[in-house]
Amino acid sequence: MKSDRAVISIDAMGGDAGPAAIVGGMARSARKNPDIRYIVHGDEPTLAPLIAKRRELADLVEIRHTTDVVKMDAKPSIALRKGRKSSMWATLQTVADGDADVAVSCGNTGALMAMAMLCLRKAPGIDRPAIAINWPSRNPAGYNILLDAGADIRADARDLVQYANMGVEYARLGLDLSRPRVGLLNVGTEEHKGHPVLQEAAQRLEELAGDPGASVDFVGFVEGGDIASERVDVIVTDGFTGNIALKTAEGTATQIRGFLREAMNYSIWSRLGAIFALTSLKRLQKRLDPRRVNGGVFLGLNGTVVKSHGSADATGVSSAIKLAFTLARDEFSEKVAQRIASVTPEAATERNGRQEDQKRTGG
Amino acid sequence: MKSDRAVISIDAMGGDAGPAAIVGGMARSARKNPDIRYIVHGDEPTLAPLIAKRRELADLVEIRHTTDVVKMDAKPSIALRKGRKSSMWATLQTVADGDADVAVSCGNTGALMAMAMLCLRKAPGIDRPAIAINWPSRNPAGYNILLDAGADIRADARDLVQYANMGVEYARLGLDLSRPRVGLLNVGTEEHKGHPVLQEAAQRLEELAGDPGASVDFVGFVEGGDIASERVDVIVTDGFTGNIALKTAEGTATQIRGFLREAMNYSIWSRLGAIFALTSLKRLQKRLDPRRVNGGVFLGLNGTVVKSHGSADATGVSSAIKLAFTLARDEFSEKVAQRIASVTPEAATERNGRQEDQKRTGG
Repeated sequence: MKSDRAVISIDAMGGDAGPAAIVGGMARSARKNPDIRYIVHGDEPTLAPLIAKRRELADLVEIRHTTDVVKMDAKPSIALRKGRKSSMWATLQTVADGDADVAVSCGNTGALMAMAMLCLRKAPGIDRPAIAINWPSRNPAGYNILLDAGADIRADARDLVQYANMGVEYARLGLDLSRPRVGLLNVGTEEHKGHPVLQEAAQRLEELAGDPGASVDFVGFVEGGDIASERVDVIVTDGFTGNIALKTAEGTATQIRGFLREAMNYSIWSRLGAIFALTSLKRLQKRLDPRRVNGGVFLGLNGTVVKSHGSADATGVSSAIKLAFTLARDEFSEKVAQRIASVTPEAATERNGRQEDQKRTGG
Repeated sequence: MKSDRAVISIDAMGGDAGPAAIVGGMARSARKNPDIRYIVHGDEPTLAPLIAKRRELADLVEIRHTTDVVKMDAKPSIALRKGRKSSMWATLQTVADGDADVAVSCGNTGALMAMAMLCLRKAPGIDRPAIAINWPSRNPAGYNILLDAGADIRADARDLVQYANMGVEYARLGLDLSRPRVGLLNVGTEEHKGHPVLQEAAQRLEELAGDPGASVDFVGFVEGGDIASERVDVIVTDGFTGNIALKTAEGTATQIRGFLREAMNYSIWSRLGAIFALTSLKRLQKRLDPRRVNGGVFLGLNGTVVKSHGSADATGVSSAIKLAFTLARDEFSEKVAQRIASVTPEAATERNGRQEDQKRTGG
């Protein structure tokens, strides 16, 4: 992408809140950012009036009609077999065709990843794509990056090293860090802790970080309590553990927000106190609002996909679109691919081969 | 234990805060509960003056001198080989000998579990002991139970089913529930989600819960966000995942407490508000205080062991002692063993065999 504009391909039928929330999020982002254009996929008779009502969206949206919807609880294998006419598939295909820069969907994560692998294909040298998320942290950037947040429940040592490399590139672009610090999530920081796969990955990352001019700084094992800390920027784990950690943290935050609400409503004095502290409490609420950090990024594909929370409302969708826009401007997936190629010799060969093919076919 | 009294065997040398914090916790518990007696293990020249200073402890404490200390970062295998003269070993041996009802230590978890397995031995029918913790929840009891919180990073389907049975017995005693609901921690609630081990364990638990008169209610898979919910009472997982979930939740709670402090200090208005809401905010702080839920219980051994947080202060140690006292009164480990025997035929045979042996030897 060379212009300042970015075209976002959006699945308007995914998610629990329905097309209205998604169109609401699109309008919100369009108000804030004049450089966004949309290609939106879904049931045209439903979408056209929703979009017509939003003046902010006039002339910014192309609707592409689709007939099918991938259900939120569909098995990925079934979605793959039966979902070729779905809004989700069309959303990804538009990026694969080069009509849009980034895809955004609130739909079923498993189905979206399975379709993205087929439609966009894995980047050269990548065995397993991963989902990276921003995790509110005590670092100056305000966020750490955790991956894999749930693309694949398995990961071997080689996969974990690839996640580290992809996460480093994401942190360089997304958090503007020159030499992000990587930690491997484990049950203790001592060398002998954890599964053999983790010990093998740690050894490989140490070698990688030891190279002269290495752009990775490996801090070793980190624990669950370190995910939000200033010890580390990128936390690497398998998709099973990453998903459990993410949802446990979200659950804990929701629980404490409830406790805080109860505490401020407890007596006439606390209610009075809440009035005095209103501005501060609102800032705190905004800080704890999970909708503000909505959006998992699929790394390791030939094209960028942002997965929004299934339950996202207009605010959540707008956050995901903002993230998608940033990644589109940075030519993100291309840079991740370059990075993987620079650290894995096979990927470099594969990549050069593809470029040769493209030259020959004029692509 | 037939009397109302309970003798607690305490490792005074474990933990980061040193013997003073442990003696402080003992004194705190003694003030609240006249039925506690202590056998305390460690360096007598250090302990005697600390204990003499506390009037509450007069005549309640027997000091047993030990020379060695297991280091917080010692490998379990090395602790086992070299730790026979340690305060940790003596603490466990005192329970094995029948001199005390429950053991309490703030020391190295891995070393404590390895020594406990050798010293107390696994209960009949148990392959892998587990660590159970209380997790603040929205249920009426105020807590859910999660296990394994980190005894063993591996667990097969049979282990997970045993954890479920041990957790149910702990919930019956600790949370006073007649038919605790068990959930298996996974990355989704759909049947096809997760590792094959989880699917096999789910199937076995469904069979178990389907038996007429079953004391287990199996709710299926639960996610990270459900650990604190009212959907479930006992959350079963392997020790790797359980440890990551626990530490992630603790880290999130610490982070949010920091945000709240900042918010209430933000302006003159919020500081004024905090003064009005002081009582409520203090209640909230108490509710979020991790020291109040200090203490993991080792399940599946011939004897009860409570592992306190390594960084526990006097308040934390006192919480762990309170938990130990409750378990001693309930003849806890005996009841867990009975339960395992009632659901696993091999365990029943093994257990009856042991009782026969005891009769023959007059034990």
